[in-house]
Amino acid sequence: MKNKFGFILIKPQLGENIGACARSLKNFGFTKLSIVSPKQSWPNQKAKATSVGAYGIIKKAKIYNNTHDAVSNFNIVISFSARKRDINKKHISINQFLKIIKSKKNTKFGLMFGPEASGLSNDDLSLSNYILQIPTSKKFKSLNLSHSLSIICYEIFKLENSNKFEKNTKNIKISSKRKIFSLVLHLKKLLEKKGFFVPTEKKHTMLMNINNLIYRMEPNDKEIRILASIISSLSKKKY
Amino acid sequence: MKNKFGFILIKPQLGENIGACARSLKNFGFTKLSIVSPKQSWPNQKAKATSVGAYGIIKKAKIYNNTHDAVSNFNIVISFSARKRDINKKHISINQFLKIIKSKKNTKFGLMFGPEASGLSNDDLSLSNYILQIPTSKKFKSLNLSHSLSIICYEIFKLENSNKFEKNTKNIKISSKRKIFSLVLHLKKLLEKKGFFVPTEKKHTMLMNINNLIYRMEPNDKEIRILASIISSLSKKKY
Repeated sequence: MKNKFGFILIKPQLGENIGACARSLKNFGFTKLSIVSPKQSWPNQKAKATSVGAYGIIKKAKIYNNTHDAVSNFNIVISFSARKRDINKKHISINQFLKIIKSKKNTKFGLMFGPEASGLSNDDLSLSNYILQIPTSKKFKSLNLSHSLSIICYEIFKLENSNKFEKNTKNIKISSKRKIFSLVLHLKKLLEKKGFFVPTEKKHTMLMNINNLIYRMEPNDKEIRILASIISSLSKKKY
Repeated sequence: MKNKFGFILIKPQLGENIGACARSLKNFGFTKLSIVSPKQSWPNQKAKATSVGAYGIIKKAKIYNNTHDAVSNFNIVISFSARKRDINKKHISINQFLKIIKSKKNTKFGLMFGPEASGLSNDDLSLSNYILQIPTSKKFKSLNLSHSLSIICYEIFKLENSNKFEKNTKNIKISSKRKIFSLVLHLKKLLEKKGFFVPTEKKHTMLMNINNLIYRMEPNDKEIRILASIISSLSKKKY
């Protein structure tokens, strides 16, 4: 499904940003990068350096000298813009965007991002179907190019891998209740020796408080052993 | 509510990344940045340059020389890690994270990010309550520091501004049906002059097809005028 999406950078100013974008594409399983008229010469050393493990995407990037050619293979083009534009083009929200890409099968989506400082021109926008503005604080709307692209890659990845966002997938090996009970018993015996449970009528409540504390800890086997040895150590007569 | 969150960068290697992080914080309405042992000298010129409009956050950043001091004012600390760690600490998903921050009132959250190359040490992780791994492609898990932080800022912002993610907020001023109808009438008259509706029994279907096309366009008033003048121009006898 990832092949449905191509990312188009229009006149990016800095090689570093192109590299950072490539890295993000690979992080979220995308491969297709098109660049229209990069400001710096191409191939670009800084783009290579900042792409880290995603140099393959930089190497395979398609370079165009106009937006028209760059969008020609797509069925639907979505422009990302930091500000509302006075152009009669449908502005969609992130959730509407996600619905559109989910509902349209056999459709190639071109996702178009403008230059760092100025954003997309009205000429570029006129070639798109929709305009999407990533919501931000009203006080500072200008997102870094690779941050915008990362957020969009992340949202598409999330749509296709929702299970990975739901539950913690790591099983913590919490000790069995038997082992936790042995620990509590060990502690209880030593505390009895030390005359801790005074007055005796409060012993039950005191034990319950200890249970509450220890059962809440969710220790693993190693931590149970550490706790047992701390308790033993504390109860020794040595000073 | 934004004051609930502080962002802690542990031993960041590059000033550029600190600047990019500050920019993202401001984009999503956060202000609190703490830095533990930045590798380069502080204050840092590159951090200032890449922070763009968020230099205020860089200026007010708190610098610590150990993680312990940096986390001391928070109630709950969440560590962000690119890999599963073999440590008995609860790993939570993004959605679990969002539930936790939504449910706990009067709680200050420290959100802790490790150095670019190595990630958080086990010592740092031991001071946190939870570990969160941002889901990525299995083939390339290493997210750029400012990308990880941007995604987390974005998710918290989304939680608190869900309305901004639902519907398109820009009202496109689509022309009234009256104006669209006038346009169609204008087109119809000219086409009749040109003998377009042949054979006459198909006239109704042909008109309906034209309606389908034009009513779908959602033009604004200016576009209606443009269309009308295109139609007039095409129908002229000049060559």
